[in-house]
Amino acid sequence: MYRAPVEEIAHTLKSVAGLRKALEAGRFGDLGEDLVDAILAEAGRFATDQIAPLNEIGDTHGAVLEDAAVTTPPGWKELYRNWIDGGWNGLTGPEEFGGQGLPMLLSVAALEMWNSGSLAFGIGPTLTMGAVEALEKHATDELKARYLEQLVTGEWMGTMNLTEPQAGSDLNALKARAEPVGDGTYRIFGQKIYITYGEHDFTDNIIHLVLARLPDAPAGTRGISLFLVPKFFVGDDGSLGARNDVFCSGLEHKLGIHASPTCTMIYGDGKFGDQPGAIGWLIGEENRGLACMFTMMNNARLAVGMQGVAIAETAYQKALAYARERTQGRAPGFKGEGMSPIIEHPDVARMLMTMKALTQGARAICYSCAEALDMARVSEGDEAKAWAERASLITPIAKAFATDIGMEVASLGVQVHGGMGFIEETGAARYLRDARIAPIYEGTNGIQAIDLVMRKLPLSGGDTVKALISDFKADAEAARASNAPRLDGVAEHLDAAIADLETATAYLQLAISEGRQTDALAGATPYLRLFGLTATAAMLARGALADIDAPEADGRAALAKFAAISLAPETAGLCVTITTGADSLEAAQAALA
Amino acid sequence: MYRAPVEEIAHTLKSVAGLRKALEAGRFGDLGEDLVDAILAEAGRFATDQIAPLNEIGDTHGAVLEDAAVTTPPGWKELYRNWIDGGWNGLTGPEEFGGQGLPMLLSVAALEMWNSGSLAFGIGPTLTMGAVEALEKHATDELKARYLEQLVTGEWMGTMNLTEPQAGSDLNALKARAEPVGDGTYRIFGQKIYITYGEHDFTDNIIHLVLARLPDAPAGTRGISLFLVPKFFVGDDGSLGARNDVFCSGLEHKLGIHASPTCTMIYGDGKFGDQPGAIGWLIGEENRGLACMFTMMNNARLAVGMQGVAIAETAYQKALAYARERTQGRAPGFKGEGMSPIIEHPDVARMLMTMKALTQGARAICYSCAEALDMARVSEGDEAKAWAERASLITPIAKAFATDIGMEVASLGVQVHGGMGFIEETGAARYLRDARIAPIYEGTNGIQAIDLVMRKLPLSGGDTVKALISDFKADAEAARASNAPRLDGVAEHLDAAIADLETATAYLQLAISEGRQTDALAGATPYLRLFGLTATAAMLARGALADIDAPEADGRAALAKFAAISLAPETAGLCVTITTGADSLEAAQAALA
Repeated sequence: MYRAPVEEIAHTLKSVAGLRKALEAGRFGDLGEDLVDAILAEAGRFATDQIAPLNEIGDTHGAVLEDAAVTTPPGWKELYRNWIDGGWNGLTGPEEFGGQGLPMLLSVAALEMWNSGSLAFGIGPTLTMGAVEALEKHATDELKARYLEQLVTGEWMGTMNLTEPQAGSDLNALKARAEPVGDGTYRIFGQKIYITYGEHDFTDNIIHLVLARLPDAPAGTRGISLFLVPKFFVGDDGSLGARNDVFCSGLEHKLGIHASPTCTMIYGDGKFGDQPGAIGWLIGEENRGLACMFTMMNNARLAVGMQGVAIAETAYQKALAYARERTQGRAPGFKGEGMSPIIEHPDVARMLMTMKALTQGARAICYSCAEALDMARVSEGDEAKAWAERASLITPIAKAFATDIGMEVASLGVQVHGGMGFIEETGAARYLRDARIAPIYEGTNGIQAIDLVMRKLPLSGGDTVKALISDFKADAEAARASNAPRLDGVAEHLDAAIADLETATAYLQLAISEGRQTDALAGATPYLRLFGLTATAAMLARGALADIDAPEADGRAALAKFAAISLAPETAGLCVTITTGADSLEAAQAALA
Repeated sequence: MYRAPVEEIAHTLKSVAGLRKALEAGRFGDLGEDLVDAILAEAGRFATDQIAPLNEIGDTHGAVLEDAAVTTPPGWKELYRNWIDGGWNGLTGPEEFGGQGLPMLLSVAALEMWNSGSLAFGIGPTLTMGAVEALEKHATDELKARYLEQLVTGEWMGTMNLTEPQAGSDLNALKARAEPVGDGTYRIFGQKIYITYGEHDFTDNIIHLVLARLPDAPAGTRGISLFLVPKFFVGDDGSLGARNDVFCSGLEHKLGIHASPTCTMIYGDGKFGDQPGAIGWLIGEENRGLACMFTMMNNARLAVGMQGVAIAETAYQKALAYARERTQGRAPGFKGEGMSPIIEHPDVARMLMTMKALTQGARAICYSCAEALDMARVSEGDEAKAWAERASLITPIAKAFATDIGMEVASLGVQVHGGMGFIEETGAARYLRDARIAPIYEGTNGIQAIDLVMRKLPLSGGDTVKALISDFKADAEAARASNAPRLDGVAEHLDAAIADLETATAYLQLAISEGRQTDALAGATPYLRLFGLTATAAMLARGALADIDAPEADGRAALAKFAAISLAPETAGLCVTITTGADSLEAAQAALA
């Protein structure tokens, strides 16, 4: 069973993602390490004691739809109630609406723990938090006054309605319509699919944020507007009124995260109300809905990255516990009686170390993304811009690398269990099933890679990526300068990975500037992996160096060394593929078509 | 829906795995290409038209246990009957017992197709074929006369009973007992788990091959004997008599292959018969059961490798069809109206080409293993020994590489489908669930890698591996000599991969000869991957060169180029990890424990 790795999380926040430095410099007001530690410990207890025990029943029971009402699994409604009563929903929410205004760094750490407890639980509040941010940034004061506090506390949940059957990754194809009523409201018509927690019994009201087109709106994404559509209308006194014309017509039967209701939502077919049309209120300007939605989406991408870290952590813990208990054969050098615990076998240890290093690397990358978001918020001018661009650069890596390794680690976890891993009751296979969604939703990992290469590498003429790579170089330099025997070889392997990253970056930047779009696109996914592996090696070294003289840091140093020597060398092949592979892909593509 | 790729299979058999050369040299008697083609076409039709359509109900319905009897999904019993009526079970079986005595090359090609139709169906007959081989090689004439013909025709099925809860990979820990009755039979007692098709309604009788210990047998694997234990006793006239004291007490609830009953088998608890003890007959010599079982297991390993190829092929076909139909966005250079088919997007094409190249590589490796088995059978003296050792060398690569890429390809298949991939009804997720077992059973892939490094590299003082690598060099040389523009760059990249393979091989051989066991074991899994990738690149080049001047070979050349440039470069990093990684693993292992 999962136990929140609070100590490791705190170390990564403070010593890798720069939380300690920021606290010491007073960047987060009077927030201090003591409070941070207390919050992490409390979140860890909640995730460990309350969420994780309900994960299995969530999977086996699932969410159930009957008469357009969704019932969550036994115990889940109470779990959500306890969770919002603990104030966890409002951790980063605006203080004027009942939130605690804490840094994103704390939020992502907590998100990791909720999702380790249960991915199907953790994904729900993520959408609410996105809705809060979109409303806070783009809604009128009246809408804020009416909806924000309940969303910040979690009394109501929020949803994000983008996808339609013909419009997944490509929102140009969106068809949902919004007709102005004349009183400032709109009537919304259309079908949305894959709506996470679109309907449920956690809260009395659900606030849908919905993309739709106004009449005569321009074609494509420049003609999309964002609307707030409550399930129940809200009176001036905050009381709930009549039902709006929106309902859930179906739940998807999914590979994993069974407890998370994935809804088909029908807007405006006349099931509720006097005349067809779900009443909605415009958020932001007409035809500028996509910009508002991106506010939600960027946060959601980092949050999904945390899901990758979270499932990897759980899968690792489970595999580690099994490998310590299960005995088979005799490992080289084993001195005990009878059979060895399988963890003693080098190949099993290799799997476990790979799991641990990838998990820790993805965690560090995601937390660094949160650091950049926080620093952008508390900075001004050029500093703010640089941090914001860094967040923007890291976001696709955080989302895609972390969710890719989530799958990889969960699959290794099954393998460590041998035959038991394929048996559902063991639970290892459940992590694999749950993990599989994260590389897909909130923008597939292919889309993230394209975003990284086409939109993020060019930021500030390439200075943004250059600055991040410089940080990795500083890590390599620090490893070299430390002369720590336990980090023997780390600097050299890190140098090699960074050189590959620089070569590939330069190649892709040139391809973009010369308009060789296919060359850039063909290398996008291998490039994102290359970036993630290099960052992993650099950040694990950074984490190890932070307390290299402490005896308890043995594990961190060993992990950093393993990452540099056994994982980072993959960058060599990736670099070759990126810089020479586009031709072969084009020929092959022609042969496929 | 799956369509058997008969043309590609035939090409790989004939031009990559040497079937044409062997046929032309008359190595397989009067078997000719026409008959081969006819058999492949007929097998393809059966798999496409009869097996594949029953795969989904197999998954959703599953096998059901009631009162120790297992019912297979609707239509499956009839499917099996049609399949044996078609003579498919006896394809390679001995002719004197009703088999057709055809080469393994045809058998693996057919196995691939059955398993592409349904992994849960294909695994059953695999066990029967193993039982046939074990009996043919090791059983007394009396046992052969009584059981072999029905097993060859498939009238009865066979099973393989190794695993016990405490004895999975490590058979030393086996506890099942066999007590001599005094009349030449034995009473078997014990529990076996994970017994594939241990109980079912396909056939009237089931022939269990069971590992157990005789009283006073030496400890460890040198004290294990193999017994034949029929579900029903067989009279001298072949009629079925009383029920033996063995039954299925439970079915596992698994991640995938739901239609394949995975049974817990109870031997000798007195449920049937006058006194407790399942009656068994010794196969081979006392205490030499493991050698007999290995006869079954080696074949089963290649057969499981075919499952990896099979599921990869199906997953690829499904993803390809989806990517041609689904439209989203506009790909660079797309000239059509509206949205492009997603196959036009370079990143989607990259996924599909990766799927196709890995599938084709794994297929070629597995078929080459079958070629070596066939050639060993029809050769004599040193030639026979060389072929047998080559089969022995390739077997762990065939099993592990093919099943690893089975997972990789199935997971990519889900990704190509986007959100649809996570929905069970789509079917892409089912392939992923089914694929997950293959890296585990018949010896985990970690065990295969260890077998490759510790037992296979030293064969004939290293000459066996050297000869195989020489073949890859010849492929590189042929690519260079061809001067085919469509293979531009292939020779160079192949050279680089082969150099990595040689470096890693030499390192591991030295480690073994110097007794540095951990160094060798730590590199085993990366080495197997390195071997598989190099073989993939070499064999795809070989396949492309076979008809490089034919216009329809565009696709094969493009695939070979893609494999060499976009997949093979991974060997560089693997080589670094193998040759420098053991230290880092040992330190990390110490930190884990």
